[in-house]
Amino acid sequence: MSERTAILVAGGNGNRLGGPVPKQFQTVKGRPLLMWTIEAFHRFDPAMPLIVVLPQAHFDIWKALCMGHRFFLPHQVTAGGEQRWHSVKAGLGEVEGDGLVAVHDGVRPLVSTGLIGRCFEAAHRSGAAIPTVPVVPSIREVTAEGSRALDRSRLLAVQTPQCFHADLLRKAFEQPYDPAFTDEATLVERLGVKVELVEGEDHNIKVTTPLDLRMAEALL
Amino acid sequence: MSERTAILVAGGNGNRLGGPVPKQFQTVKGRPLLMWTIEAFHRFDPAMPLIVVLPQAHFDIWKALCMGHRFFLPHQVTAGGEQRWHSVKAGLGEVEGDGLVAVHDGVRPLVSTGLIGRCFEAAHRSGAAIPTVPVVPSIREVTAEGSRALDRSRLLAVQTPQCFHADLLRKAFEQPYDPAFTDEATLVERLGVKVELVEGEDHNIKVTTPLDLRMAEALL
Repeated sequence: MSERTAILVAGGNGNRLGGPVPKQFQTVKGRPLLMWTIEAFHRFDPAMPLIVVLPQAHFDIWKALCMGHRFFLPHQVTAGGEQRWHSVKAGLGEVEGDGLVAVHDGVRPLVSTGLIGRCFEAAHRSGAAIPTVPVVPSIREVTAEGSRALDRSRLLAVQTPQCFHADLLRKAFEQPYDPAFTDEATLVERLGVKVELVEGEDHNIKVTTPLDLRMAEALL
Repeated sequence: MSERTAILVAGGNGNRLGGPVPKQFQTVKGRPLLMWTIEAFHRFDPAMPLIVVLPQAHFDIWKALCMGHRFFLPHQVTAGGEQRWHSVKAGLGEVEGDGLVAVHDGVRPLVSTGLIGRCFEAAHRSGAAIPTVPVVPSIREVTAEGSRALDRSRLLAVQTPQCFHADLLRKAFEQPYDPAFTDEATLVERLGVKVELVEGEDHNIKVTTPLDLRMAEALL
């Protein structure tokens, strides 16, 4: 398989968690979420380059945290931008060669090595692959008149790692910035490329609320 | 405000939790989920009739559980049917008068008295009201060609209690059974009635997986 790189996006200020600490630095089982996420990728492949995208303003905090927690797993830190789009683009600028790239949420620490492997394999095969899980609740769409029910059986919730051929992802990020951007797969699709869907994992939660934090605590 | 009744739907066999016990009977903090849910509604209004819909085959287990846990909160038990649609319809058959009816998942034990109250008030005002919360993950729709991204900012996840004027809900359930049925609000909308959206609660989770069970355990 081609060379692989992972971009771990931790650009957010994490206001939704309500704490004074950005969410990627919130402590779970004795250390920041982001360290668990880095470790998950290190476990998958200790030799794979890991590019961690952080706001410039958090560089010193992160350095201090790594010292304090004696966290020495190798990773490269890069400054992110205003929105996720800018942060992923910045991380992508650090990726070398034309192998495979995984983009993963820094606050999704419970990803398994199996899932990372399956996403890379699918992207190797088809250029673009993302993990998805069935949507559990009934979903409504807000309309001009109020709202309407959608057919849940046809909906999927998207997770990360989203994996791509590096060249394809670079081309996707050459498109102009769109404020409606939510994930990398959508950008790649605009190039006319079909995204392969990989079966995700219930446990692979994105930790964005205090409730999620408690769940991660229970699971890690 | 008009007279109120709650239908607590616990008709499922709960296979998704993977245990030998139906999910509504799974023990959380020392007692079955369904008892926590009944207690939440009892706390809201101890005088409100509670109609618990269970599969006929589970009546004896439930009776034994209530004895064993010395659970004496008043509630009426009614036999459900094959699908949720049949169970809610059966519960509705036990509702007296023309007041307000709440339909609530038996495995949603963390609902607050505040949310129950807001849903009843909104239904009193507008005939039909349901709680919703923003959708966190990116959502894709499966299409003939593969899948496409939806605009997440326009999507809402539906919770319960779903509250209605009793007469309106009865009329909605006079419509023929549709296997695509997912919730009561959708049925009511088919009568041309607009459903009012109430702000739901992150904590008001539906316990359907082992992961949810651990979260409920942490929160109750």
